[in-house]
Amino acid sequence: MNKTNQKVNAAIVIIGNEILSGRTQDVNVVSISKWLNNLGVRLEEVRVIADIEYSIIKTVNELRKKFNYVFTTGGIGPTHDDITSKSIAEAFNLSYGYHKEAYRILEKYYGKDKFNDGRKKMAMMPLEASLILNPSSGAPGFFVENVYCLPGVPSILKSMFGELNNKIAGGKKFLSKTISIETVESEIAKSLESVQKKFKNVEIGSYPFFRLGKIGVSLVIRSTEKKQIDDCHKQIVDFIKKKEIRIIER
Amino acid sequence: MNKTNQKVNAAIVIIGNEILSGRTQDVNVVSISKWLNNLGVRLEEVRVIADIEYSIIKTVNELRKKFNYVFTTGGIGPTHDDITSKSIAEAFNLSYGYHKEAYRILEKYYGKDKFNDGRKKMAMMPLEASLILNPSSGAPGFFVENVYCLPGVPSILKSMFGELNNKIAGGKKFLSKTISIETVESEIAKSLESVQKKFKNVEIGSYPFFRLGKIGVSLVIRSTEKKQIDDCHKQIVDFIKKKEIRIIER
Repeated sequence: MNKTNQKVNAAIVIIGNEILSGRTQDVNVVSISKWLNNLGVRLEEVRVIADIEYSIIKTVNELRKKFNYVFTTGGIGPTHDDITSKSIAEAFNLSYGYHKEAYRILEKYYGKDKFNDGRKKMAMMPLEASLILNPSSGAPGFFVENVYCLPGVPSILKSMFGELNNKIAGGKKFLSKTISIETVESEIAKSLESVQKKFKNVEIGSYPFFRLGKIGVSLVIRSTEKKQIDDCHKQIVDFIKKKEIRIIER
Repeated sequence: MNKTNQKVNAAIVIIGNEILSGRTQDVNVVSISKWLNNLGVRLEEVRVIADIEYSIIKTVNELRKKFNYVFTTGGIGPTHDDITSKSIAEAFNLSYGYHKEAYRILEKYYGKDKFNDGRKKMAMMPLEASLILNPSSGAPGFFVENVYCLPGVPSILKSMFGELNNKIAGGKKFLSKTISIETVESEIAKSLESVQKKFKNVEIGSYPFFRLGKIGVSLVIRSTEKKQIDDCHKQIVDFIKKKEIRIIER
């Protein structure tokens, strides 16, 4: 099988009490997912867990065996609640300490005088980890095997995607087509189901919306096969027209 | 032990390909978490999984044993991709079919003439489920034992909290206090850690921010014990003042 035909999947582990407490709205899942789509990697699971070493170790060890790639976000900063790096070292049973290259990068970034203990902590990680350079604020992320550890701050996280592009080997890209129509789901449920049954390699999602005083449904057709999407789309448009439902956007 | 002193925890299972694909930004975690905080229930894990029956069954069966409450969101509408109700019936090994009370509610809501097959599907659920009434759009949610199934549309989901308030038995409420200061994390990491070590029942979170051109850190102190929070807060304010760091907000 050609490598680009393989299905490649991923999971995200969000390490953050602040997400669980409702204090912070996560936005990293959307960024990572869209970036992975473009690389031909499909996000198949997300877990949000607390800043507890045992939970991080258990979750990462479970998911890294199940998925091609695992991305963690959060917990690699300088404070006492940043325990991701240590937990990853434990998960892989690797030594945890000052990573030479990370130490050099941070010392250069801050200057010897301002390189205090808090900042030095950001150089502590599994000694055998490979770095993910950080173009926006110095402190690098890192990866061990298929587990990639990224920061929680959204703008910094995004700035590290470029560095990762050539490290992630994706498969066939998922393509999609959306049609938004002025109706309610129950009016189209039966016809939609019979189209879905004809296209096994296509995923049709139906999402009701209420916006600008309008009630509507967005139908999202996803597949790795463009022709399948086009054929499926045609059949959906056909029954929509037959039902005299207005198409808002296609 | 007094019931209100017990720790009560919860997990959320978001069932939604649209969240995993990056098409839709989840906002339900923040709503549910804040609502649970007020009831004295602590959100300890979130999972986002695909619309796959096997995954729903496995995830729900794992989490319902581990947490006092499990909330699912999404997948209870009328279309082919709405498979939560059927999956929950399977997870609990219960019969799946038209729930009498739900059927009556929906028939009354839509009127006999407009009660088509799609709408009828929303009355299909585990026959022994208890309903969660929906004041905003008719179709009820439901619960079986400690698993509560809610819709994915944020406004409808929120409208159902009122109905649930007297069904969820919470424990001691988590309280919190936040101080925002003009500094970087590495300047306070050491002092913060030594305060944290003195307060075992307090959780201190440190969250850097960049807004309005300012760099700062928000320190969030959380505990079920008000006095502990106040004492901890005082010690943090003390070292902040000693370091001559400006307090932005407290």
